[in-house]
Amino acid sequence: MSEQKIGTRSELKRFRELAQQMKQYDEILGVVYWDMRTGAPRKGIGLRSEAVGALSSEIFRISTSDEMGQLLDTLSAPEQAEALSPVDKRLVEEQKKEYDRNKKIPADMHREYVVLSSQSESAWEEAKEKDDFEGFVPYLEKIIDYNRKFIDLWGVKSTPYDTLLDLYEPGLTTTELDRLFGELRSRLVPLAEAIASSDNRPDTSFLEGTFDKEAQKKFSRFILNEMGYDFEAGRLDESVHPFATGLSPGDVRITTRYLPHDVTSALFGTIHEGGHALYEQNIAEELAGTPLCTGTSMGIHESQSRLWENMVGRSRGFWQRYFPELQKHFPGQLDHVTAEQFYRGINVVEPSLIRIEADELTYNLHIMIRYEIERMIFNEGLEARDLPEVWNAKYKEALGLTPPTNALGVLQDVHWSGGAFGYFPSYSLGNMYGAQMMNVAKRKLPNLDERIAEGQLLPLKEWLTGQVYTHGKLLLPAEIIERVSGEPLRSTYLCDYLEQKYRDIYRLG
Amino acid sequence: MSEQKIGTRSELKRFRELAQQMKQYDEILGVVYWDMRTGAPRKGIGLRSEAVGALSSEIFRISTSDEMGQLLDTLSAPEQAEALSPVDKRLVEEQKKEYDRNKKIPADMHREYVVLSSQSESAWEEAKEKDDFEGFVPYLEKIIDYNRKFIDLWGVKSTPYDTLLDLYEPGLTTTELDRLFGELRSRLVPLAEAIASSDNRPDTSFLEGTFDKEAQKKFSRFILNEMGYDFEAGRLDESVHPFATGLSPGDVRITTRYLPHDVTSALFGTIHEGGHALYEQNIAEELAGTPLCTGTSMGIHESQSRLWENMVGRSRGFWQRYFPELQKHFPGQLDHVTAEQFYRGINVVEPSLIRIEADELTYNLHIMIRYEIERMIFNEGLEARDLPEVWNAKYKEALGLTPPTNALGVLQDVHWSGGAFGYFPSYSLGNMYGAQMMNVAKRKLPNLDERIAEGQLLPLKEWLTGQVYTHGKLLLPAEIIERVSGEPLRSTYLCDYLEQKYRDIYRLG
Repeated sequence: MSEQKIGTRSELKRFRELAQQMKQYDEILGVVYWDMRTGAPRKGIGLRSEAVGALSSEIFRISTSDEMGQLLDTLSAPEQAEALSPVDKRLVEEQKKEYDRNKKIPADMHREYVVLSSQSESAWEEAKEKDDFEGFVPYLEKIIDYNRKFIDLWGVKSTPYDTLLDLYEPGLTTTELDRLFGELRSRLVPLAEAIASSDNRPDTSFLEGTFDKEAQKKFSRFILNEMGYDFEAGRLDESVHPFATGLSPGDVRITTRYLPHDVTSALFGTIHEGGHALYEQNIAEELAGTPLCTGTSMGIHESQSRLWENMVGRSRGFWQRYFPELQKHFPGQLDHVTAEQFYRGINVVEPSLIRIEADELTYNLHIMIRYEIERMIFNEGLEARDLPEVWNAKYKEALGLTPPTNALGVLQDVHWSGGAFGYFPSYSLGNMYGAQMMNVAKRKLPNLDERIAEGQLLPLKEWLTGQVYTHGKLLLPAEIIERVSGEPLRSTYLCDYLEQKYRDIYRLG
Repeated sequence: MSEQKIGTRSELKRFRELAQQMKQYDEILGVVYWDMRTGAPRKGIGLRSEAVGALSSEIFRISTSDEMGQLLDTLSAPEQAEALSPVDKRLVEEQKKEYDRNKKIPADMHREYVVLSSQSESAWEEAKEKDDFEGFVPYLEKIIDYNRKFIDLWGVKSTPYDTLLDLYEPGLTTTELDRLFGELRSRLVPLAEAIASSDNRPDTSFLEGTFDKEAQKKFSRFILNEMGYDFEAGRLDESVHPFATGLSPGDVRITTRYLPHDVTSALFGTIHEGGHALYEQNIAEELAGTPLCTGTSMGIHESQSRLWENMVGRSRGFWQRYFPELQKHFPGQLDHVTAEQFYRGINVVEPSLIRIEADELTYNLHIMIRYEIERMIFNEGLEARDLPEVWNAKYKEALGLTPPTNALGVLQDVHWSGGAFGYFPSYSLGNMYGAQMMNVAKRKLPNLDERIAEGQLLPLKEWLTGQVYTHGKLLLPAEIIERVSGEPLRSTYLCDYLEQKYRDIYRLG
């Protein structure tokens, strides 16, 4: 064995150690974040946040240390890289990407930006409450300005906005998004308009009333079990904003929120987070304890939550099987309703101003608008102060509505205040990935709809495990969708699915 | 300003940073431990334990680093130390003690011992289950052997056992413990005997029955509130073994265990852990975020849990006020019982074989036996294989009972299997410190018994805060008791208190 290879071997060992250590610290931070959001005592938050900051800094320090830089140089040299196992190779790639990205931002600038983001989020909160966009403009301007500088430092890809997209969906481009959202616009805007003028709005009156919290909890647990969520590798708790967190495949936690007057909130929230959780619970054993043991991108992650929430959880077959169970959980309250009525009621389409309250169909239009605006900011020089005008015009055009206030318009989301530009597209990408995968699943799994209607959800879970979950971050999003469907991501499947489903529900002929 | 002083100042700053970092990591580990004991999913425990191990190692690394060694050398030099604030001075002292102790154990030896302890705890568990002391002997021998080596490496104080005592109760000596336990033996053994032959055993039949869990929870929360436990700086959960954990003064958590057939278990468990928690919640602001923000010793900590559990929570006055409340929580179940009957019933004395089931009085005899045996092991060469014989003889002598099996005798406690020699005395020290403090409190706080009987518990809590809690680890245990009572620790106050209380309950005249 050559001396060089022996050298690489000890360097590989050290690299793996550092990667494992960062993952371990990350797992521990995950527990603390979960705790902070599920009931940590108020008076301890100040010191706890400082402690979290200290450990986060340590992870950052390791990931950008000189030692890490040297190890990455050695291990990513072409002649070495090809000797690595696929896992090690991918691990080196990921870590190198992070190293390069972090090293390009001067430490002072990074510190200033962390402080600014935190101030900006507070300013946004106040501005939203007071409907005071003007008060928020100076912060938003600075946040945009820093992001423009980051793009220059990281290096402009095909367009400046592409550099930001790559943070959340590696390899995704503006060209591709233009194509994807172009089709969404041309097919979903007319569909939403046709629905708006339909006389067949589903009845939703039976969703009103008070639904016992304990029964809601019980039903949430029941459905998670049916989906194949493993309660010995997770737990279900409550929090103000529902979330799922994968600490390790053996500990993937879900939270939900029970509203007494809205039984659908906890129900679909639980299925949504349950989809995220199935992903994280089923990553291959060999990736456990490495930074590759997580979802491969925001978009693929969101595809799983949305596939389970909407394409399974809001399907006709699902409620053929589970509506009688729901009725049993709330005796007397839903006796006069049929499974079909319930199915139609939970799929009502209603153009609205607020993204997080939107239905499955128009949700994509909310995202499309945000995508177009972000692209204008970074590729066409749109400035912060002009956002409300552009925002309102786009809402009028796509959804036929004009926000009466900025609080109900451009100020509604937290994302931009913290600098998360390029994140929004993930939500619709999730819908598109999901539809494309389900299209394949229906061909590969015989009688899938019928099986779902019999409560056999596990074959779908197993298939998704093999196709998606098991790979963790070992495959890139584009590789996943290509392997699953034999073609790159297309919006056609989402549009087809939505058209078919909603033309039926609204009897558009 | 001299150059030397400027140098010291930057070293002091760096030292404080490292101390804070260790405390922050410790706080984070505390959250993870709490989580593991209150419901973390089973399947995540393996990786979680490794992650905890990694962060613990990092704390150990910092505390024994060359940088820490150099900082401690500089800051503890006589001419520098006197320029430090009392907090910094004490911090340097504590850190130096830890540094010296850890540096004296070779790294290999430390690693071997960690592995051995873990194996030994498993072997103990099995041995206890199978009543197989012989199977446990090889492990116990090695554990004792390592501890004898540690004593040599750390340096023998007045006697070898003194070196171990110092780990848990800094400054405590065998000479002093001989004096303290000597008086306990001479006064409590006859008292227990007199009680055993008394005809006035309190009635306890009303404690049998089934007590609603939700009502038990509610009453536990009610009593904690009355004690002044701050629920905005803590929370009450359930775990198999109750504990309290002070993550920071703003987050001090308690767990308890609700037994349907024993209402006293959760009740006194909660008050006990509540006493620990009051200590940690009320440490001075200026110590928060430093390693001095914790109880000063095992013994002083235990004094607070036991003072609240026994001297307050099992007092006649306490139940004059709270028994009607307890009756309200369990309607119909305790109607035929008087507060006085309840008070006597919860104070029944019953010599028994098992320490953790012992009453307030005989508990001290269980500890005395363990102390005498530990002293024999390290100062007189008693060997592992001879422990059952010594154990059984001492139980016969002090409690009049002979364990029918080793599982009910020498194998009952986990402590020795993990190498925690020198820990047991803390429990009785807690009782002694507590009695000595209460003796002063009764002189300093006018009509203390009457106030407790009116449900005014806060004056006692405030007094203890000023005397004990606020100081955290800034004062040594001996300094605390000296400042509170004007004299060193004596066992007289505990013996007086127990004699008075139990001669009354058992009408020994």
